[in-house]
Amino acid sequence: MATLCRPAIAVPEHIITREETLELARTLHADHPQLELALRLIGNTGVQTRHLVQPIEATLKHPGFTARNNLYEAEAKARVPDVVSRALEHAELTVRDIDMIVYVSCTGFMMPSMTAWLINTMGFRSETRQLPIAQLGCAAGGAAVNRAHDFCSAYPGSNVLIVACEFCSLLYQPTDLGVGNLLSNGLFGDAIASAVVRGDGGTGVKLERNGSHLVPDTEEWISYGVKDTGFHFILDKRVPGTMAMLAPAMREMAEPYEWDVSELDFYIVHAGGPRILDDLGKYLRLEQSMFRYSRQTLVERGNIASAVVFDALERLFQDGGAEHAARGVIAGFGPGITAEIALGTWSGAVTGNGHRARKTSADRNSSVTLPA
Amino acid sequence: MATLCRPAIAVPEHIITREETLELARTLHADHPQLELALRLIGNTGVQTRHLVQPIEATLKHPGFTARNNLYEAEAKARVPDVVSRALEHAELTVRDIDMIVYVSCTGFMMPSMTAWLINTMGFRSETRQLPIAQLGCAAGGAAVNRAHDFCSAYPGSNVLIVACEFCSLLYQPTDLGVGNLLSNGLFGDAIASAVVRGDGGTGVKLERNGSHLVPDTEEWISYGVKDTGFHFILDKRVPGTMAMLAPAMREMAEPYEWDVSELDFYIVHAGGPRILDDLGKYLRLEQSMFRYSRQTLVERGNIASAVVFDALERLFQDGGAEHAARGVIAGFGPGITAEIALGTWSGAVTGNGHRARKTSADRNSSVTLPA
Repeated sequence: MATLCRPAIAVPEHIITREETLELARTLHADHPQLELALRLIGNTGVQTRHLVQPIEATLKHPGFTARNNLYEAEAKARVPDVVSRALEHAELTVRDIDMIVYVSCTGFMMPSMTAWLINTMGFRSETRQLPIAQLGCAAGGAAVNRAHDFCSAYPGSNVLIVACEFCSLLYQPTDLGVGNLLSNGLFGDAIASAVVRGDGGTGVKLERNGSHLVPDTEEWISYGVKDTGFHFILDKRVPGTMAMLAPAMREMAEPYEWDVSELDFYIVHAGGPRILDDLGKYLRLEQSMFRYSRQTLVERGNIASAVVFDALERLFQDGGAEHAARGVIAGFGPGITAEIALGTWSGAVTGNGHRARKTSADRNSSVTLPA
Repeated sequence: MATLCRPAIAVPEHIITREETLELARTLHADHPQLELALRLIGNTGVQTRHLVQPIEATLKHPGFTARNNLYEAEAKARVPDVVSRALEHAELTVRDIDMIVYVSCTGFMMPSMTAWLINTMGFRSETRQLPIAQLGCAAGGAAVNRAHDFCSAYPGSNVLIVACEFCSLLYQPTDLGVGNLLSNGLFGDAIASAVVRGDGGTGVKLERNGSHLVPDTEEWISYGVKDTGFHFILDKRVPGTMAMLAPAMREMAEPYEWDVSELDFYIVHAGGPRILDDLGKYLRLEQSMFRYSRQTLVERGNIASAVVFDALERLFQDGGAEHAARGVIAGFGPGITAEIALGTWSGAVTGNGHRARKTSADRNSSVTLPA
């Protein structure tokens, strides 16, 4: 068994509010023919605050890809170790207990990757496996959980450290003026998350099953233009409707294990935008309150890419966790369009002072005694 | 069990010879204060021919990172599917049998990665796991084998497709004039490799164990500068001496399984340069003929990054394979400095018309009857 333990999260100190974002869009794009649409879309995200690695004045400058990527490296090295240390504490492990590091990030590129620097700097063992993933975007949070789970299945008792480091503000491209770009400029935020998947013991989500789904022929819906000026985020207007295709995929993935994805106890899903959560509620026939942790992440931090699922999971922990054996799902969504889905049960003592999650699906099912 | 089946390889149609490379260096760098050293280093590589995706005249132009990366994408899409089809044929599987695609490449960047395009274009199942790795450089060939092995251990009977697509010539940077750069310009070549790791059955290397090793504090020895002009390869002059540290790591990894890494039947190692093979022979006390497949790859194709180990393995297949149960090692070396090492035994019928590999280590050991 493998248990995803309590994540550690850090957000940078520079904050931009919803009002500042809207005012900035009005100022920067006063003559944009679709300004009103962009403002409405930004307003509809529900994002209230976002955190950035630089003050907004610096964020709006594009010093070139060279400088941008150097800044990514410097900020990652300055900020990641503390988050990793806290994640290890949550899992009650040390660097010497870790067998693999999965480092996911789509907002900077380093070779060797941060995994090598972390091993050297923090004292992980030389034989620690390195799995850096740069090309799964927002789905990489779910992918990291799933590949960590697979590794623990291959090597029972091993432990995997996950790091999701996303400085989305370093992808701001002042010359990209499509409505999708203006929306993205008002949607994404920066954050670092880390969590340990423990092979034995631990409190958190015991990982039971995982799966991946690629929506056919949607490669161009979310993509990067890779240019002299760095990575250019390209967002198709069809993306918000993706849950029509991914909700059935989630259902189909769970069915062979006789799990009804509409009857789980907790939902930790990528909050790419408000429509994802609205539509998941619609297609899975769930109240919006079931997505409250993901919604809180979106509102307070914006879309923080691969870090969303960990930030939302941390909120479940803050909230007291779930009942032992409660069933849940963790799902990352990103370019491809790809979903990386994990099914798990809550394992270990309920902690914290928050109120409990609702009754477990097992409890509910046992109370349904009427024939259909 | 998981078996690494016969790889398929493709090299592009544009060829540059050793003589052309040396002449080019003399012409381009006539005034370079260390030209003679660079020429000597290039000559010492032993590389006779390299294959390039473009004619040399086009290779020497830098049209900007945007155009370079677009070319990477176009060439990958044009060339990869055929190699994948042949790898599937070698494994006697179809696209529908594949559960995961590991795509490794450090010479272009796409998001979504080629995995999504391959799934859509070639008809892999929508639930195929995608594992794109861009940041392990030349070690990624070994890493791909090892992560595929792990996946088959986690899901017995599953099948993993590996693709290594390296167009190193698209990293040529005309303004980088260090001796390490001049050497690299004469060393690297382009190639595509693909191979299947079969969960059940198959002829090839049955993967027994794997491990990774990071040489402490060598992060800067092989690295990329990530710049407006794309990826800039940086090679430290200490790199050729790396085997002094990695040969013991290979020995230590094998020891817990009571394998003597100096007594194996076949060696499929990354031929980053001639010194790697020379030194491995020295430190492991092996004749150079034991590295003949890797040496042939280096001589005929140059350093083709993560594709080297597959090209060398294909030469072992061409040569008739090894005796059933013969022991061997596959090792990728790359930035970190990282080694990704797999231990395996030859499984299945010996095929082809070539001569046999030498007697197995088990045979040899049984003939050693004299006391020490």
